Amino acid sequence: MVNFPEPISQLIDGFMKLPGIGPKTAQRLAFHVLRMPDEDVLHLSQALAAVKKDLRYCRICCNITDVDPCTICRDELRDHRVICVVQDPRDVAAMERTREYHGVYHVLHGAISPMEGIGPEDIRVKELLERMKNDLPKELILATNPTVEGEATAMFLTRLVKPLGVKVTRIARGLPMGGDLEYADELTLSQALEGRREI
Amino acid sequence: MVNFPEPISQLIDGFMKLPGIGPKTAQRLAFHVLRMPDEDVLHLSQALAAVKKDLRYCRICCNITDVDPCTICRDELRDHRVICVVQDPRDVAAMERTREYHGVYHVLHGAISPMEGIGPEDIRVKELLERMKNDLPKELILATNPTVEGEATAMFLTRLVKPLGVKVTRIARGLPMGGDLEYADELTLSQALEGRREI
Ligand SMILES: [Zn+2]
Ligand SMILES: [Zn+2]
Repeated sequence: MVNFPEPISQLIDGFMKLPGIGPKTAQRLAFHVLRMPDEDVLHLSQALAAVKKDLRYCRICCNITDVDPCTICRDELRDHRVICVVQDPRDVAAMERTREYHGVYHVLHGAISPMEGIGPEDIRVKELLERMKNDLPKELILATNPTVEGEATAMFLTRLVKPLGVKVTRIARGLPMGGDLEYADELTLSQALEGRREI
Repeated sequence: MVNFPEPISQLIDGFMKLPGIGPKTAQRLAFHVLRMPDEDVLHLSQALAAVKKDLRYCRICCNITDVDPCTICRDELRDHRVICVVQDPRDVAAMERTREYHGVYHVLHGAISPMEGIGPEDIRVKELLERMKNDLPKELILATNPTVEGEATAMFLTRLVKPLGVKVTRIARGLPMGGDLEYADELTLSQALEGRREI
């Protein structure tokens, strides 16, 4: 390739590890960094290091958190007998934006996808069962994405959990099929939550 | 906004300082970082810090370098009496890829743009004159981009330098107008270099 000074080559390599960033974009970002104020660059550098050092998974809901248990699992004003199951930490954030949900969460960190070789053991299903074993919730809301993988995961969890006598609901398809929960606007998500039905 | 744990919010803010990265992309990148191997994240973090610490501008050609003068300005096998003027360090890299240029460079770090309020004093014109004052080159190749700003800069430099009795050439328009020099393929660039004419 080209003879950029070593520190720039290193930075270009680093950016290329990020998703959707190819060599040209990585170059563009690296040269932009050179023109950024020192403090902004150091801030980003430190934020990267900190995110690996200071974050962990909540021992209860598996969400990403800097305190364990997370602030939602600690919150005594929330209804701990209603658990909303989502694929991703960003989905928790999307749900919270509706301000209409007052239960707790369980974050699967993925969805079942035979195509990609992702099975139930690759996502946080075991942790969900473990958590329910001690204390059966009165409702389990399945809020995985309305995609093939999300639906397959909802089906799988339904079959697993219904026999325990738990009320299982699926978030309504107010969301367009194929869409991603985290990009839904607040109103659509509120409606989807309100229209949920028992499976 | 949303209640992400503080370290994630910080990282999202950090990514948003990069060009072309809005809130949604910044979120996507930040959550991807969480799933990256520790060593890759630390590598990027350190590369960011190093780029600010270890890089400087070459005192001769103004290119970005980790040794001053840069390796090109130090190279005694190159022809130091031919100076190729480019807008950006990446343009030096593009020229080097042709393997057909054996002179040295001057990096302006921009182009004159009255629209954006960028004048000659905002780019490295003074350094170019200073450098030529001591030792007149036998040729100054203007390889600024074939854009409105690049042409304006070439015109400006021509008027400034020709009176000194220096041969001034403009890289041939083998490049499509409106294009960016750094994205040109090697052949187009070689041809553009070969077809240069005296202004
Ligand atoms: Zn939690
Ligand atoms: Zn130099």
